[in-house]
Amino acid sequence: MTLDPNTIRAAHKRICAHIHRTPVLTSTRLDEASGAHLFLKCENFQKVGAFKARGATNAVFSLDEATAKLGVATHSSGNHGAALARAAKLRSIPAHIVMPSNSTKVKVRAVESYGARIVFCEPTEAAREAACADVIAKTRATLIHSFENEDVMAGQGTAVVELLEEVDVDLVLCPVGGGGLLCGTAVAAKTMRPKIKVVAAEPANADDAAQSFRAGRLIRTEKKFTIADGLRTNVGALNFSIIQRYVDDIVTVSEEAIISAMRTIWETMKIVIEPSAAVPYAAIVENQSSLSSGSASKIDIRGRRVGIILTGGNVDLDALPWML
Amino acid sequence: MTLDPNTIRAAHKRICAHIHRTPVLTSTRLDEASGAHLFLKCENFQKVGAFKARGATNAVFSLDEATAKLGVATHSSGNHGAALARAAKLRSIPAHIVMPSNSTKVKVRAVESYGARIVFCEPTEAAREAACADVIAKTRATLIHSFENEDVMAGQGTAVVELLEEVDVDLVLCPVGGGGLLCGTAVAAKTMRPKIKVVAAEPANADDAAQSFRAGRLIRTEKKFTIADGLRTNVGALNFSIIQRYVDDIVTVSEEAIISAMRTIWETMKIVIEPSAAVPYAAIVENQSSLSSGSASKIDIRGRRVGIILTGGNVDLDALPWML
Repeated sequence: MTLDPNTIRAAHKRICAHIHRTPVLTSTRLDEASGAHLFLKCENFQKVGAFKARGATNAVFSLDEATAKLGVATHSSGNHGAALARAAKLRSIPAHIVMPSNSTKVKVRAVESYGARIVFCEPTEAAREAACADVIAKTRATLIHSFENEDVMAGQGTAVVELLEEVDVDLVLCPVGGGGLLCGTAVAAKTMRPKIKVVAAEPANADDAAQSFRAGRLIRTEKKFTIADGLRTNVGALNFSIIQRYVDDIVTVSEEAIISAMRTIWETMKIVIEPSAAVPYAAIVENQSSLSSGSASKIDIRGRRVGIILTGGNVDLDALPWML
Repeated sequence: MTLDPNTIRAAHKRICAHIHRTPVLTSTRLDEASGAHLFLKCENFQKVGAFKARGATNAVFSLDEATAKLGVATHSSGNHGAALARAAKLRSIPAHIVMPSNSTKVKVRAVESYGARIVFCEPTEAAREAACADVIAKTRATLIHSFENEDVMAGQGTAVVELLEEVDVDLVLCPVGGGGLLCGTAVAAKTMRPKIKVVAAEPANADDAAQSFRAGRLIRTEKKFTIADGLRTNVGALNFSIIQRYVDDIVTVSEEAIISAMRTIWETMKIVIEPSAAVPYAAIVENQSSLSSGSASKIDIRGRRVGIILTGGNVDLDALPWML
């Protein structure tokens, strides 16, 4: 397959019975604060609490019968693991989820609740990949990578398809980690409405995508800690080639801005979002201060209509970032 | 006026341009956990973050021109103060809000943001009433009591009107503090659909309404602390007479159940609700355990369609109840 409007439309048709059509919310207060018109696509209300349900479901239901029967596998410490476990359950096929041994109980329980088999491994990238390769060798299950997979990307792109069916926007903002959501979003938005700008937002502490974008080649950076745990991963090589072609810009945000944006959205919109989901709004706020301080603007949103993908709402209520 | 279907319908027409028509959300997980079909009317998404916007707006816009010009006044440590301040601003009339001197900054700021005049007083019921009477004597402003006022009750009743326009339910559950919401809800529900049961839920630590309901006469109880700060007040005399006529039952819930229900709704529905708003779902959960332990059931909701008014979402994110 190739990632294009047709595969994304087909993905939407394939998964729509299995996912929520999430609401697009607006907020007078956030509009006043940002000087723009914001349209927030609430994937925190999605099945498994994150947009990841879309990509995993599309990947699982795209498999032919014989392949599907052998099951699916992935390594994930986050929402993709639960999403793949759920999709496999919907298709009544086995799922093997490799998780680091230090995964939080709530994440382990989420995967277990869908009846998947969990394989624990050491909490390193190398150990995760080795354990996953081992599972696949033994079971002949299909690897469903959380972002370097065009079926997954096509599925993630269905969120912006729904957004654009409901509202017209000038700009779409979404976070970037591995790049699955960003690729699906950019291809869908740019092909449905060529004039739309697509801008990604990334934590400054994990800015490999922004650095790669500026350099024009894939750069691996040493990561510092970021509270946006969904965005700690490096952007995929396949994803980067699509990003270079379809994305207009990648901006970075501070940890303070992420935490403050998350809290602002909780307080004003009364919705629970995870830190990664707050990164685009953090970019808006930080961008405004750079505007008012007279330094160069990265994204000018004044008076514009801005779509934002609120990516998820899975957060540990015992360890909220403003309490750490 | 009298509180009846006509005044509630008229209230809805009067206020609908000034308030949100809030969504009715459902949750597969909560349905599975409760064995019922729950329909949650999300007044946490309402203007000022609570259903109180409805009653205050109706009361302010019900005043004749000459009376309105003199302004409105109330004493409130909570959402009604902000709601009245906002409604007065919408009508461009003065608002005087008496608040206890120990009110949290966030509540003071909310009232200030609507341009109301704040009068601080000692944090006792007597001091609040005296300060409010003093303001009214000096300004000739109209007292808009937060619950002992039929215009306020009619406004609060518009939430269940919207709920019943969208879904059919067998039972409506709402919290009871002073009784403004409960009276509006009960009169609207019982007159629109006479077969609907209306059950109120109240913290066991502030159970004057439940005790009064059982005794058949107004009882003032000594209050213990409850985390559900919106429900600490005694039920009003006017409210109680309406409750006796229209409400089927009042059940009480423990503090532990309130905190647990609040957390469950945050985690599963990804929405921010305040402790008072969690009280009806807490009643469902505690009622279930009393069912499974073989003791008498208070409310049998198995397989039934249950409407719940989620009353508000104003909560101090630095002091969440499960962290205290």
